[in-house]
Amino acid sequence: MSTVTANLAISLDGYTAGPGQSLDQPFGTGADALTEWMFQTDEPGRDRDKRLLAEIHAETGAHIMGRNMFAPGRGEWDLDWTGWWGPEPPYHAPVFVLTHYPRDPLPMAGGTTFHFVTDGIESALEQARAAAGDRPVEIAGGASAVRQYLAAGLLDELVLHLVPVVLGAGERLLDGPAGTRLEPVEVISSPTVTHLRYRVLR
Amino acid sequence: MSTVTANLAISLDGYTAGPGQSLDQPFGTGADALTEWMFQTDEPGRDRDKRLLAEIHAETGAHIMGRNMFAPGRGEWDLDWTGWWGPEPPYHAPVFVLTHYPRDPLPMAGGTTFHFVTDGIESALEQARAAAGDRPVEIAGGASAVRQYLAAGLLDELVLHLVPVVLGAGERLLDGPAGTRLEPVEVISSPTVTHLRYRVLR
Repeated sequence: MSTVTANLAISLDGYTAGPGQSLDQPFGTGADALTEWMFQTDEPGRDRDKRLLAEIHAETGAHIMGRNMFAPGRGEWDLDWTGWWGPEPPYHAPVFVLTHYPRDPLPMAGGTTFHFVTDGIESALEQARAAAGDRPVEIAGGASAVRQYLAAGLLDELVLHLVPVVLGAGERLLDGPAGTRLEPVEVISSPTVTHLRYRVLR
Repeated sequence: MSTVTANLAISLDGYTAGPGQSLDQPFGTGADALTEWMFQTDEPGRDRDKRLLAEIHAETGAHIMGRNMFAPGRGEWDLDWTGWWGPEPPYHAPVFVLTHYPRDPLPMAGGTTFHFVTDGIESALEQARAAAGDRPVEIAGGASAVRQYLAAGLLDELVLHLVPVVLGAGERLLDGPAGTRLEPVEVISSPTVTHLRYRVLR
């Protein structure tokens, strides 16, 4: 069965987004620092970051994300909204969006199709597994979606891209579940960010 | 001038102590997980942890700690209390304790002497530097003392021993200072804990 994994950029004080998330600042105020390492990976010493970024999306068979990660609004859908990523999102695979509001599947360029799942995280995982075959299913975020899968014992692997900055406020990834233990599987360090791969122990 | 460094075991959700710190449980409830990696370092695969632990204390010329790290009580001193560590504390060097209550220096076996500093963190650092010579000064903890030195721009290096457990509550190391940036200098991974050495950028 496919591995269920989550990849998140996280500040040294545990935030995956800054405060005040909005249409202009989807990661919130001051949180550019969390995503900087994903760019300029052609600079010296950045090969590991580049390779790692390429691998993440290349291997994944299907993605799951919370509604807040797909859209800034709440409530009924604005059907003009097709995500943050423009006409060709970087997923190139089916993406299952957790929501309380039904919506027809939304096919995009490059192989990404957004499916809207209204009957819970387990159903979304079942559909993602069916779509992924043997390839990994990625919980793409945000923090709340990852926490829900972790708390339900459905996450196999957690990959944190630890960015050496103190944000001071925002959305914390790990507000519980207390008692969770993980096993370090791989650590890749670069001059800008430390990539920590953990297996979730059950 | 000597480097000012801090060494802290920290949970994946950012806690350096669990809730309910007491005489019986100085690290609070559930926080044994934070210190487990310091023991049984003779087991296979633990050489790096063992070497690292030995280095930390061997190199340090003087230590600084907050009062809560030295004693469970508050207010005027109970002079019978000589620390958590028995007759021979593991510091083998001068230790400057930040407090509002004066007390005479307390020499212990093995080269540790506790000095009680009532005129603030800068004075404590000055005294520690004088005692340490060229060797590093370590802010031994707790979280609050480390945060104060970090916020004052007096910390050169932060070493986090990242323990893969979610505590869910307790004392967080990094509740601010927001905007602090660090540079990863060294990462040492072991099967049980990841040691992250950062230089504090100013």
